[in-house]
Amino acid sequence: MPNSNLPFAQRLDNVETSAIRELFKLLGKPGIISFAGGFPDSAMFDVTGIAAAANKALTEEPGSALQYGATEGYEPLRKQLAAFMAQKGVQNVAPEQLIVTTGSQQALDLIGKTLIDPGSKVIVEGPTFLATIQCFRLYGADLVSAPIDADGVQVDELEELIKQHKPKFIYLIPTFGNPSGGLLSLERRKRVLELAVKYQTLVVEDDPYGDLYFNAAPPPSLLALSHEVPGSRDWLVHCGSLSKVLSPGLRVGWMVAPAELLARAVMCKQFSDAHTSTFAQATAAQYLAGGHMPATLARVRKVYGARAKTMCDALRSELGDAIDFVTPQGGLFVWARLTGANGKTKDGATFARQAIEKGVAFVPGAPFYCANPDLSTLRLSFATADEDRIREGVGRLAQAL
Amino acid sequence: MPNSNLPFAQRLDNVETSAIRELFKLLGKPGIISFAGGFPDSAMFDVTGIAAAANKALTEEPGSALQYGATEGYEPLRKQLAAFMAQKGVQNVAPEQLIVTTGSQQALDLIGKTLIDPGSKVIVEGPTFLATIQCFRLYGADLVSAPIDADGVQVDELEELIKQHKPKFIYLIPTFGNPSGGLLSLERRKRVLELAVKYQTLVVEDDPYGDLYFNAAPPPSLLALSHEVPGSRDWLVHCGSLSKVLSPGLRVGWMVAPAELLARAVMCKQFSDAHTSTFAQATAAQYLAGGHMPATLARVRKVYGARAKTMCDALRSELGDAIDFVTPQGGLFVWARLTGANGKTKDGATFARQAIEKGVAFVPGAPFYCANPDLSTLRLSFATADEDRIREGVGRLAQAL
Repeated sequence: MPNSNLPFAQRLDNVETSAIRELFKLLGKPGIISFAGGFPDSAMFDVTGIAAAANKALTEEPGSALQYGATEGYEPLRKQLAAFMAQKGVQNVAPEQLIVTTGSQQALDLIGKTLIDPGSKVIVEGPTFLATIQCFRLYGADLVSAPIDADGVQVDELEELIKQHKPKFIYLIPTFGNPSGGLLSLERRKRVLELAVKYQTLVVEDDPYGDLYFNAAPPPSLLALSHEVPGSRDWLVHCGSLSKVLSPGLRVGWMVAPAELLARAVMCKQFSDAHTSTFAQATAAQYLAGGHMPATLARVRKVYGARAKTMCDALRSELGDAIDFVTPQGGLFVWARLTGANGKTKDGATFARQAIEKGVAFVPGAPFYCANPDLSTLRLSFATADEDRIREGVGRLAQAL
Repeated sequence: MPNSNLPFAQRLDNVETSAIRELFKLLGKPGIISFAGGFPDSAMFDVTGIAAAANKALTEEPGSALQYGATEGYEPLRKQLAAFMAQKGVQNVAPEQLIVTTGSQQALDLIGKTLIDPGSKVIVEGPTFLATIQCFRLYGADLVSAPIDADGVQVDELEELIKQHKPKFIYLIPTFGNPSGGLLSLERRKRVLELAVKYQTLVVEDDPYGDLYFNAAPPPSLLALSHEVPGSRDWLVHCGSLSKVLSPGLRVGWMVAPAELLARAVMCKQFSDAHTSTFAQATAAQYLAGGHMPATLARVRKVYGARAKTMCDALRSELGDAIDFVTPQGGLFVWARLTGANGKTKDGATFARQAIEKGVAFVPGAPFYCANPDLSTLRLSFATADEDRIREGVGRLAQAL
């Protein structure tokens, strides 16, 4: 191979992507039923509404929608996003207290760029979002895994880890996390905010799934709760996204953070991509201003809720005590553990290979851990297959097992 | 200010943004005629054509245009961009040899992320693009300034700097550079490619302005020339952009690079923003496929060419021998030097303050140097004011001087 002597930066040595590549290779086979994705169902997109919003943006504000824009974000969108959060119970976030990011992935990148030095400790949940692990490691983070259970991150253990490692920050997905699908309890949410203040430690709340609840609304986000814990807003970063509820293709996310951090994130973003597409931002702003989100959210909640129920019912009836999981109350994922009952395999990666042979794909859980992986875990997405295909796919899983 | 103890990363200490903030503060006054921008004229955008392309994308391919996409870029756009470059004489760039970036600013960021370690030497032109300086410094680059003249970077001097510093790479804007407006001669282009091969050193060609020529086409890009210099493609990175010719708001740029580098840039991009807005990419692809670019380019070339001539004529007649510049043959900028004739000021920053008081803004040249700034320089954009306003603005400059 030519150029094997290209002078790559040392930070690239921190990242091992073969696990990811292996996962994606699994998905190429024709006829496969995929529970492997981490994305919403394209069939759920409000294409008509988005097209109308785009046309309105180009008719009413073509100069702004097609020109360079402020790195902080397009002002009308910042206002709409502040209002969107206010409707969800987040008080006192002014438009200038949030910046628009190119998807919430960019918020993670800006957090890494502004905060992480080589060797910096960062606490994440075990398991957590794969692209978060890689993103922070590219900046040289030394990740520490905090254990979770059915109520989310274990806060006593978290406090011990804070004391021991004095991390730059703690990264959590408290609501319907990827991959765990878990839900941090209200009591623990308050404890997390109290720990942030007590140890003067930043907490990053990544919240792309909080709107995707199926029945009762989840506990308030850490951001919404922060007014109950004095001083906690000074230590809280909140990342939101339209990707899971409206469209990932717009690449519109946002970040709320203390003013000093926000200013530095803007500086870094200026040299990362100058600004998020104003065309996409103006389209999103028009969509939100048009008042379409409540109906859109009601629709996706109903469809994903039904698919989640179908998948959980089928898993219980078809795989029985060979598999263990908590029924998700929202999000896109069932996070399950192979029990090894009746001599069945307990290894997620082995089971994934067996499943592919039977024509169904999912993602084994090990790569979602930054340390000490639970090899018996797996992540199943119920978002993109309809209910019949879900039942068929779970049937194939049973055959594979 | 609360949180002054937030644990920011050391890399932030590498960047001084006050110069930039000062520049932008100059622009707030009402009634000002601005030659300060680095952007195209919003009035030139083909709003109708872009709206039609967006509608076509959402009608014909809604699932793709609104869903997550490949980090490398949306396949139909990669094909269109390869074809667009082929029309400009770039042979042998297959779609898979380029990736789509979120504006060409992101290409710079990915080059920094994949190649620069703290302390890495990088050679740039003196002067060069301000956001390049900051972007590379955020990754810890130690920048070396290579002198330019009317024919672009001085290649003998460049060779000495390569031998002395053994840089990770050389960054050039060979065609109508920002801020210099300069044009690297054909002979020097070949020499640069030969130096890349001789010293096994990557050369980054940033080319957002190459399509904006006013009369004769400029010499071929380094990428187009590379087939004449055996082995040079292995050491060449080329960044393109639709921002200056179609719309910055789409944030669509691209990067051609050796396969190994491209693979690592994709890995880094995955954790930077996952992918560039598929909505913007599908819109751009439809626009290019519709064959609108030749007419759009002809229109902007004509308008900017007339504005450039108006500005240069007015500068010569109004400021006389107090100012010296090479008439630009393309791009957006006149790069000028105050001569100090007849006891007039020779300091660009002083002149900028005097000009603001007379109601006209431009950018003094010093911040565009990574070292040894020429304080007598200034950058004047002729892109966004019409010809009457340009004459009026240059009249105010004469009063200010």
